[in-house]
Amino acid sequence: MRRAIYPGSFDPITMGHLDIIERSARLFDEVIVALLLNIEKQPMFTTEERVEMIREVTPWSNVRVDTFEGLLVHFAVQQQAQFVVRGIRAISDYEYELQMALMNRRLEPNVETVFLMAGEAYSYISSRLIKEVFKLGGSIKGLVPELVEKRMRDKMANG
Amino acid sequence: MRRAIYPGSFDPITMGHLDIIERSARLFDEVIVALLLNIEKQPMFTTEERVEMIREVTPWSNVRVDTFEGLLVHFAVQQQAQFVVRGIRAISDYEYELQMALMNRRLEPNVETVFLMAGEAYSYISSRLIKEVFKLGGSIKGLVPELVEKRMRDKMANG
Amino acid sequence: MRRAIYPGSFDPITMGHLDIIERSARLFDEVIVALLLNIEKQPMFTTEERVEMIREVTPWSNVRVDTFEGLLVHFAVQQQAQFVVRGIRAISDYEYELQMALMNRRLEPNVETVFLMAGEAYSYISSRLIKEVFKLGGSIKGLVPELVEKRMRDKMANG
Amino acid sequence: MRRAIYPGSFDPITMGHLDIIERSARLFDEVIVALLLNIEKQPMFTTEERVEMIREVTPWSNVRVDTFEGLLVHFAVQQQAQFVVRGIRAISDYEYELQMALMNRRLEPNVETVFLMAGEAYSYISSRLIKEVFKLGGSIKGLVPELVEKRMRDKMANG
Amino acid sequence: MRRAIYPGSFDPITMGHLDIIERSARLFDEVIVALLLNIEKQPMFTTEERVEMIREVTPWSNVRVDTFEGLLVHFAVQQQAQFVVRGIRAISDYEYELQMALMNRRLEPNVETVFLMAGEAYSYISSRLIKEVFKLGGSIKGLVPELVEKRMRDKMANG
Amino acid sequence: MRRAIYPGSFDPITMGHLDIIERSARLFDEVIVALLLNIEKQPMFTTEERVEMIREVTPWSNVRVDTFEGLLVHFAVQQQAQFVVRGIRAISDYEYELQMALMNRRLEPNVETVFLMAGEAYSYISSRLIKEVFKLGGSIKGLVPELVEKRMRDKMANG
Repeated sequence: MRRAIYPGSFDPITMGHLDIIERSARLFDEVIVALLLNIEKQPMFTTEERVEMIREVTPWSNVRVDTFEGLLVHFAVQQQAQFVVRGIRAISDYEYELQMALMNRRLEPNVETVFLMAGEAYSYISSRLIKEVFKLGGSIKGLVPELVEKRMRDKMANG
Repeated sequence: MRRAIYPGSFDPITMGHLDIIERSARLFDEVIVALLLNIEKQPMFTTEERVEMIREVTPWSNVRVDTFEGLLVHFAVQQQAQFVVRGIRAISDYEYELQMALMNRRLEPNVETVFLMAGEAYSYISSRLIKEVFKLGGSIKGLVPELVEKRMRDKMANG
Repeated sequence: MRRAIYPGSFDPITMGHLDIIERSARLFDEVIVALLLNIEKQPMFTTEERVEMIREVTPWSNVRVDTFEGLLVHFAVQQQAQFVVRGIRAISDYEYELQMALMNRRLEPNVETVFLMAGEAYSYISSRLIKEVFKLGGSIKGLVPELVEKRMRDKMANG
Repeated sequence: MRRAIYPGSFDPITMGHLDIIERSARLFDEVIVALLLNIEKQPMFTTEERVEMIREVTPWSNVRVDTFEGLLVHFAVQQQAQFVVRGIRAISDYEYELQMALMNRRLEPNVETVFLMAGEAYSYISSRLIKEVFKLGGSIKGLVPELVEKRMRDKMANG
Repeated sequence: MRRAIYPGSFDPITMGHLDIIERSARLFDEVIVALLLNIEKQPMFTTEERVEMIREVTPWSNVRVDTFEGLLVHFAVQQQAQFVVRGIRAISDYEYELQMALMNRRLEPNVETVFLMAGEAYSYISSRLIKEVFKLGGSIKGLVPELVEKRMRDKMANG
Repeated sequence: MRRAIYPGSFDPITMGHLDIIERSARLFDEVIVALLLNIEKQPMFTTEERVEMIREVTPWSNVRVDTFEGLLVHFAVQQQAQFVVRGIRAISDYEYELQMALMNRRLEPNVETVFLMAGEAYSYISSRLIKEVFKLGGSIKGLVPELVEKRMRDKMANG
């Protein structure tokens, strides 16, 4: 049984995240989308809202959603996950990813970081940039799942 | 009529900015130096001061100064500008610039981002670094126009 | 009158090249697609074949094809072109491009290098990689204009 | 059944390769170390020698060695392998790897490229550099398996 | 007499810093480890604590510790130091380092920046990452000197 | 006594090389400019011509010229040099330099690689690019010492 953690803030989940999750679901027996608690100072969505949105847009039977705090590798060990999945895009991401993966390997040699490449169309999108564009009135159609786009509009209207 | 936007915070305008503006003025029929409102938390100069300084140091007849808020591509469309100009310097700039240019192309395919290369002597200067050096008592002669240097000294003396 | 040179080997012309040429045709009054003679040791297509293919796939009225040898900036001056256009894609390209642009600026300060960004779908294709894939039996549909694909098949069949 | 191809020239296999193979053997049900035929102009070892050395130094039961020519993705499909494994080290590698992975995804969307990170100690070694150092009389102990070191000495003595 | 400044925040000093200091002590007649005052908003250790820890873990007779504020090159001139030492690790560091070195050379051409390469095992550690891991309960053994690890535990217990 | 090796092909020596040699001469007690034999397939200048040109343009009393073959670190040890000097310019250089420095440190831990930064004006020049430009009739004034420029013209006229 090969189990992997896909960690992130997912505020909100994007089409790029979804692309990596789908690819991971083919590579591993089980994928845990793991929402890191408390990392964003002022998130757009609460933890509960984010977890619920991820659940609704991930139809794959071997994908489940969870939250964690503390060290990623501790969470991986606790979940008996031997792998961590990371999507790679730009060069600068990559450097940071290598640094984190080396530190994680040092902290827990039995947890291996596996890198997957997102689709080209998603290579430049991030939750942060999407929120920025959305707040300035730009269209984000196709960058996030439809459900997420709707929730962002609701959030904007009510908040 | 080819019109381009050269966006930025210009707090303050540097010799590197001026170099790109001069090159843009040769490439386009009209160049709008567009000051993005509200982006710096605690700017050294007010919007009005920055606009006035840019006006005084840009003698080219086809260059004008304006301000905008919201999405750059919306401002470009409103100004009937088909181009955005960006200066490129270091690699890390470049990655960010490509990411923004791809997002802008997605938001508005009719606005094309054009990259120009600043002179070598300006490859490592930025408004932020210049302000930092200035505040610590270092010489910034040759990094900003003389007028800007004078205004920075006045600001320091009075503020 | 703003005239630009778009230099290359074009052995053969790809959809990425075509994308940059189309964008250049909107930015400049005239674009000269300039085939550098003798640079490839064993080209797939002769100079004449390459020039003819470029002509057939570039329908824009302000684009013409020419050949040159020697220094690019000398050719630019001779053609009264004030600009050189380069497409940028990956980081490694970019470094080489900056190095060449700095040398060219030093050799001829009046010729400005302008960088345009190819469409995302073309960010990883090059003439060399396309030929390699083609020779190994891979599909190159959509990576080169249809005419070029047909000529490559003819070349393969007859050569 | 998840099967992966780990392609390369392996002239000769290094400790860095071995490290990636061991990691892959934990991630996949089966790993095929696939020696690309005819790519090196003047290899140090013949194909047979290389295959034999890889066999001797890879004790894992789910790892086997094979050779291929033509497109990697065609070989993957023929072997019913859904994955390609690549080790990533330096930034420049990474760019090339992304370019190849994007092309391979285009040629065969059902074959996914998975990137693993070699141990730090192997981040700067390559078959080419090892051969260079060896030929100049430098020690390569610890950079290749002992068997390979011995074969390189034999080759030197006899060749 | 060749004297060098090794500047930093050292909150706290890491094995990577120590590695560079030891290498510097072989290259220069005197090395001044120079703690920049007031740069960290909320440091883990006070200036005094940091200076004391650096002193305790640097046994080399030609290394001394000092603090400075203002421009690094002004401090170098005041200390009659002709050199600044910087450790290089990842690519992104490197870009920032080059930018700072170019600015420093411009401010004071007689102060030369010298780059040394930390040991591989330290290539991914930084004070910031170490503090983060420590606070989340991860082991930092081997990443900082034992004394520093002890002080961090004391700080945690008391603060 | 701190002695450093500055290795290269120097076919021919450029102003960028000279800049690094001058900086090295201030940092070390002795600098050996070490010409690597046989590396260029078809050099423009013979080893003797290159050695002579380097001698004529390096007036510093603590700089001498030598040739070597085999491993750089073996030559360093034989010359009782504890340091190797390398100039760093572009990012891609840097990666290669780090790789070589790590290999050299592994081969001989007592030889330390020290990186210096060439002047900005020399950041994009290389012997290869200078020869290319020269052969195509471009001016290389200011990129190589005057003596070298003259020798290149003589070579062209006679060869």
